[in-house]
Amino acid sequence: MLTRIDHVGIACNDLTATIALYESAFGLSVVSTEVNDSQGVREAMLQVSGSPAGSSYVQLLEPLGADTPVGRFLARRGEGLHHVGYGVADINAALAAIGATGVRLIDERPRHGSMGASIAFLHPAGVGGVLTELVQSAADAR
Amino acid sequence: MLTRIDHVGIACNDLTATIALYESAFGLSVVSTEVNDSQGVREAMLQVSGSPAGSSYVQLLEPLGADTPVGRFLARRGEGLHHVGYGVADINAALAAIGATGVRLIDERPRHGSMGASIAFLHPAGVGGVLTELVQSAADAR
Repeated sequence: MLTRIDHVGIACNDLTATIALYESAFGLSVVSTEVNDSQGVREAMLQVSGSPAGSSYVQLLEPLGADTPVGRFLARRGEGLHHVGYGVADINAALAAIGATGVRLIDERPRHGSMGASIAFLHPAGVGGVLTELVQSAADAR
Repeated sequence: MLTRIDHVGIACNDLTATIALYESAFGLSVVSTEVNDSQGVREAMLQVSGSPAGSSYVQLLEPLGADTPVGRFLARRGEGLHHVGYGVADINAALAAIGATGVRLIDERPRHGSMGASIAFLHPAGVGGVLTELVQSAADAR
C-alpha cells in the first residue's frame, strides 16, 4: 500500500534560516515553497531523492502564527520532527483500507497538499504517537 | 550527498504490538529484527520501498531499559518520531563534509547500525532539533 517515504515534516521557527542550514549541511535544494493558509504554515520542499516510483523530500514548516498546529507544536516541544508522509498510489483506497483496520483518521477525505498532491492525515493516537500523512502526488495521479 | 530517506526511527513502548499495528494498518513486513546493546534498543526494520538506489524503512525502537537514550525519550516525550536516517554513498566523506560546515557530530567515526550498515548520528542541536542519522547501507558499500 505504501510506495515510499514521501517526506519528513520538520517544524522550525525560521524557515529561511533552516533552508540555509539544509542547503549548507546536506547540499539539498528547494524545489517548491508555498503558503498553506488552511494548515497555517509557510513551507519549503527540499528534494532528497527521485525515482520513477516517486520522490522523497524534507518538508520544512514555519507556522503562520502561534495559534496554529505547528505553532502549538513548537511551543510544546520545540523545533524538530513533526510528521512523516508516506506515498500511496490511490489515496481514497488507502484511507478506506486503513480506516477499516480501526486507525483513527483526521481527514476522512483527501485535501490539497504540497505541490498539487492529495493528502490526508491519520491521528497520531492511532499510529503509536506518530502524526502520519498519506500522499498521492500529482505524478501518482497521472 | 544524501541518496534517499533511509528510514524514520520511531520510539515505542511495546515492539511486538507496534509491529502488529504497522503490519495491519499499512501492510508492511518486518525484514530484520536486532538487539543493539550499545544503543540500548530492540528494533525492527519494516520495508516501505526498495529501489536500486537503496531501500526505505520504518525502524521501530523499543528501549532495553528506562536508562537508555530511547527510554529517556519515551519518559520525556512519549511514543513517536525519534530520528530520521538519510542514505549516503560514502559515510566517511559525508561526515567530513557535514562536519566542515559546522554541524556538531555525535559520532566522529561511523559505527555499526542495522542490517550491517555503517551509521553516524549528528547532534539535533546542529540540525534544527532533529536527531539525524547518516546511513551507508551494506549494499552501498558493495
